[in-house]
Amino acid sequence: MDYDAFLDNLNPDAMRVQPGSQVKLQDFDAGFTGDFEKKAAKEILRQTVEDLASLQDVLYAQNTYALLLIFQAMDAAGKDSTIKNVMSGINPQGCHVVSFKQPSSEELDHDYLWRASKALPERGKIGVFNRSYYEEVLIVRVHPEILNTQQLPDSVKSKNLWQQRFEDINNFEKYLVNNGILVMKFFLNVSKEEQKQRFLKRINRPDKNWKFSVGDAKERGHWDDYRIAYEDALSHTSTDWAPWHIIPADHKWFTRMAVANFIRQKLQSLDLAYPVLEEHHLERLQEAKVMLKREE
Amino acid sequence: MDYDAFLDNLNPDAMRVQPGSQVKLQDFDAGFTGDFEKKAAKEILRQTVEDLASLQDVLYAQNTYALLLIFQAMDAAGKDSTIKNVMSGINPQGCHVVSFKQPSSEELDHDYLWRASKALPERGKIGVFNRSYYEEVLIVRVHPEILNTQQLPDSVKSKNLWQQRFEDINNFEKYLVNNGILVMKFFLNVSKEEQKQRFLKRINRPDKNWKFSVGDAKERGHWDDYRIAYEDALSHTSTDWAPWHIIPADHKWFTRMAVANFIRQKLQSLDLAYPVLEEHHLERLQEAKVMLKREE
Repeated sequence: MDYDAFLDNLNPDAMRVQPGSQVKLQDFDAGFTGDFEKKAAKEILRQTVEDLASLQDVLYAQNTYALLLIFQAMDAAGKDSTIKNVMSGINPQGCHVVSFKQPSSEELDHDYLWRASKALPERGKIGVFNRSYYEEVLIVRVHPEILNTQQLPDSVKSKNLWQQRFEDINNFEKYLVNNGILVMKFFLNVSKEEQKQRFLKRINRPDKNWKFSVGDAKERGHWDDYRIAYEDALSHTSTDWAPWHIIPADHKWFTRMAVANFIRQKLQSLDLAYPVLEEHHLERLQEAKVMLKREE
Repeated sequence: MDYDAFLDNLNPDAMRVQPGSQVKLQDFDAGFTGDFEKKAAKEILRQTVEDLASLQDVLYAQNTYALLLIFQAMDAAGKDSTIKNVMSGINPQGCHVVSFKQPSSEELDHDYLWRASKALPERGKIGVFNRSYYEEVLIVRVHPEILNTQQLPDSVKSKNLWQQRFEDINNFEKYLVNNGILVMKFFLNVSKEEQKQRFLKRINRPDKNWKFSVGDAKERGHWDDYRIAYEDALSHTSTDWAPWHIIPADHKWFTRMAVANFIRQKLQSLDLAYPVLEEHHLERLQEAKVMLKREE
């Protein structure tokens, strides 16, 4: 597998949101698969996951960087299954997945980045946020009554609120990157029609229907509001230090392959290396060796 | 693969510490491999890990139990590599590994179970403790000066301290099991000679020597003190609700296969099942289906 040729074909720039650009989701084809075929893509994924496992081993040993992966999407876009298929095979000791659900009372009594900060990956680890603080400019924007649960000062609840949140988020992520916690963000872009088909499939399968809530179907009624909120968030929070990737998500095999390769590319771009001991440390190791050998 | 025959051959009872028994580690052969061969064992491991991934999927969906796996051992017994080889392949979204290192000042200002409680797995997840609160009756017992950092009332620091800790730990684990958080404990039993060989191997390999600290070699000087501390801990904290397993650890391929199979056996013994929706919930799903189909 010639990865470079593969990545050229994958055309990463077409999926990376240029900082400062205005995202219109209609310009991004949710059904895109390029020249790839399902079978070949699965084999590429398998190889990529192997590479990720090796790269993660060095990341862990070096203990300098952490990698934070953020996944956002409409329901049924494949967040869970992408995380499962891309990250299974990696040493779980070096990977921590956190799913953010409705905030607890304790969490609501804090600022909205508080619970995310507590869940950040340690150096050497890959952290995965399944949903994230981006919900604060997505679901909260579509359902602004949620703001009333957040105990905010009145002065904050102005029409600049979302712009302020974008700024705060950008600054938070810049701080993370400045400290070696690298941030990659993936929006899994599923079409409204494909979501419907997946919902119907879930309802029909007894081993899957527990995953479906009637609320999910209701939320579809707000599709356009969500689309607008996503477009605004993607436009304002794709930065040089923490860019958004818009991943075609109507074909799960393509989604997984693309995400895995972006992560692989990121890890390869770092100066990852196993620690090299300094001379005086090596000498002490030799002393330990002599000591061990002297035991009868 | 006939698992039952395999497990008979593995003889789990020989590795499970009977509650109330007095453990003498010399009775447990660190080099035991039974009738197994390396190549076949690797294949068994591969199949077992596949089974674990499926079982974990149901555990996660059911969201009723959590499984806490505790690993303790002397240095170089293979904790890290066992966790890596047994748990890689499981969906990281359902698995959380925590390595306990020297406690921070904040942690030392709390009781010794505090940091462990915070790190417990959520329902539906497998939590792995790489080292644990058992260090409080192991390294702290071998180096009692550590107690001075724990700000304990004088009355606690009596000769009954260890017995008291065993009791507290047993009660803590009973509470967990009573609440659906199941506990399995593995002592990886490596021989002193094999540890020496592994230390020498680490020193000699430039890609591994960063893992070795001279302190590790020094700690070997306390081998017998650790042995006695382990024997006492294993004897007093192997309970019906949270038994200890003593896993032969001179052959890594055997260790991994055995640990994976004990976990598999445990998960299979539970009443795991995908959630089944109640009638009124199913009716609402049908309504949602009609609603989805009615969209033009």
